[in-house]
Amino acid sequence: MALIVKKFGGSSVANAERVFNVANRIIDDYKKGNDVIVVVSAQGDTTDDLIEKALEINPKGTASKREMDMLLSAGEQISIALLAIAIETLGCPVKSLLGWQAGFQTDSHHSIARIKRVDTERLKNEISKKNIVIVAGFQGLNKYDDITTLGRGGSDTSAVAIAAAMKADLCQIYTDVDGVYSADPRKVPTAKKMNEISYDEMLELATLGAQVLNNRSVEMAKKYNVELEVLSSLEVKPGTIVKEIVKMEKTLIKGVAKDNNVARISIVGLEDTPGIAFKIFNKLAQYKVNVDIILQSVGRKGTKDITFTVPKDQKPQAVEAIESIKDSLNFEDISVDETISKVSIVGAGMESNPGVASKMFEALSDAGINIQMISTSEIKISVLIDAKQADKAVTAVHDAFLG
Amino acid sequence: MALIVKKFGGSSVANAERVFNVANRIIDDYKKGNDVIVVVSAQGDTTDDLIEKALEINPKGTASKREMDMLLSAGEQISIALLAIAIETLGCPVKSLLGWQAGFQTDSHHSIARIKRVDTERLKNEISKKNIVIVAGFQGLNKYDDITTLGRGGSDTSAVAIAAAMKADLCQIYTDVDGVYSADPRKVPTAKKMNEISYDEMLELATLGAQVLNNRSVEMAKKYNVELEVLSSLEVKPGTIVKEIVKMEKTLIKGVAKDNNVARISIVGLEDTPGIAFKIFNKLAQYKVNVDIILQSVGRKGTKDITFTVPKDQKPQAVEAIESIKDSLNFEDISVDETISKVSIVGAGMESNPGVASKMFEALSDAGINIQMISTSEIKISVLIDAKQADKAVTAVHDAFLG
Repeated sequence: MALIVKKFGGSSVANAERVFNVANRIIDDYKKGNDVIVVVSAQGDTTDDLIEKALEINPKGTASKREMDMLLSAGEQISIALLAIAIETLGCPVKSLLGWQAGFQTDSHHSIARIKRVDTERLKNEISKKNIVIVAGFQGLNKYDDITTLGRGGSDTSAVAIAAAMKADLCQIYTDVDGVYSADPRKVPTAKKMNEISYDEMLELATLGAQVLNNRSVEMAKKYNVELEVLSSLEVKPGTIVKEIVKMEKTLIKGVAKDNNVARISIVGLEDTPGIAFKIFNKLAQYKVNVDIILQSVGRKGTKDITFTVPKDQKPQAVEAIESIKDSLNFEDISVDETISKVSIVGAGMESNPGVASKMFEALSDAGINIQMISTSEIKISVLIDAKQADKAVTAVHDAFLG
Repeated sequence: MALIVKKFGGSSVANAERVFNVANRIIDDYKKGNDVIVVVSAQGDTTDDLIEKALEINPKGTASKREMDMLLSAGEQISIALLAIAIETLGCPVKSLLGWQAGFQTDSHHSIARIKRVDTERLKNEISKKNIVIVAGFQGLNKYDDITTLGRGGSDTSAVAIAAAMKADLCQIYTDVDGVYSADPRKVPTAKKMNEISYDEMLELATLGAQVLNNRSVEMAKKYNVELEVLSSLEVKPGTIVKEIVKMEKTLIKGVAKDNNVARISIVGLEDTPGIAFKIFNKLAQYKVNVDIILQSVGRKGTKDITFTVPKDQKPQAVEAIESIKDSLNFEDISVDETISKVSIVGAGMESNPGVASKMFEALSDAGINIQMISTSEIKISVLIDAKQADKAVTAVHDAFLG
């Protein structure tokens, strides 16, 4: 007997048939004698429909975040009630709980609230009565008793937070894929499903565009040592376990990921004086731009060039930030390229094995792919290439390491 | 400067245009320097849509009332957020509050909960900050922190409860009619709008089928002496004030109402022994049947007949109740008639003026309408007639007293 937290996304409960499918998955585990807490998102398009209603009233999208949270949190309220009704109808005891009823206390940053704590009294009480508990994901309550939402990936985070607070044995995240793969299985036929992966490797893969799990939830799982399982909401079979894995000496490439959400910005012909880099990246930070890869090179006639990448949607702020210090910077030109992709390999033990990088570059070279920028960390190597060659690059690198 | 509570029904906020219409009505009063608290129902068909979703999952309609309350209360959550967004967009400070945030504490009878108290701390706090407050009608919280709903007419009751708890100067109930009329204005061209009416008269009119205000809310308004105004949500003009009016000696017929929701049940040929009436009506009470008019008459050969009326939808229980004591009752026959209407006149001071009844009967007689049963109270006289003649009867009686 174990305490299992299960999280189902909005598409898993989009209609009555799928609600029953999810209800049966829950009841299977409950009938084996487990305590089960379920976190659900809003049904299918509910959130989009509610946003549309708000835009009809406020087309500029300037509605206050407090009222948007009030509006959107109704979506999960509907889905938890419907799932509870399905479980009742199938004959099992169940209680649905809103975020605040389940004890979610957050800070007051409406629409992107952080969980401060989960007060587990009510959850424990319902579990002790042998109720299956259905909790509204994505939502909580701030200290003023106002409803908050957790922002993107919030329901995954809700599930991990409950698993941590309740010291659950396992937190299962149901998705439309059946686990974490060594590359995107729709693009790379030889991609393999992993049985296990470490938190750090999962974090790198998520950051790099393999959007299976939200990063925030993996970070929380790592912090509280919550064992995660990523598995299919459609098929009944084991998924991929994400947990703390003791690092081995041997390099173990876990996966290849691609990220098209990259813009490269180059500042060309900068005067070569001290403090230039600080001036640039300090200003970018003020404009809340997330800089990823940075490269500095020697330019013509004693000048230097600085190139960096940002998520595509932050390009305008990045350019604005640079323009704002144009006079004090003294550079020749600024150029932007959005037709690039970042392709990365992830795996523990990479830093002690320089052969990995050269093997990756060789695979790309053999495939005729030009590398524009390179970035490395303890457990990943990323290259920036032409976006048109990204899928070819992923396959080449995957086959070299994992094929 | 006054504190005004305003209540808008679901059709008043059914789409973005109507939401803005309501928002402007609210802002008009706010800009005159008033404190304004608004109670809103779920938008248009939202509640029906949510019930439909539940029936897709549980077609028998046996979903628990707790989960149905969880589901349905999302409807008002959506409408308060949208109305608040409209008011924000028009530039006024506003906060939407769910039932529990506005302090509604109820008993635990899910779907028909009674309000136990309204804890006004949050409401007072928001009002003191000069916020317009938008409260979700129809909902509250029980002592287990579970969401409850108040049942039919719940939003009217929510509005009156807030007005009572906050000692508001006025509670305005916006409807699709512009006030309370002396008869149904769609049927009786000479019907007049009343400027004022007493709680008791309003209660009798509501009971009798003039469905302008929910009875429960009028009863609460009377108990806490909350001045009500029934007015149009479409046109800006004064409505009808419902308040305590000192009874005058002079008979003042206030209105004529019709109720088609009546079934007449006759038990014929009852043995004339003591306790028969008690046996019948005690059993009906056990079956939760609301008996309205009762008539006992002498039948043939030393037997007696007992006839009574019930709401049409309670006819099956009523018949079942009587059948269950058939053996101990010893009667000849039971007959049911559903083709009848109750037509009533309502007005204070009636009991001290016997001429009123005869004037009513004369008007009906002149119109060729046969009276089947008669019932009187301090402030009303009701007659039971053939349903086909009901509209004719209302016009005849109305013209005699108010034409």
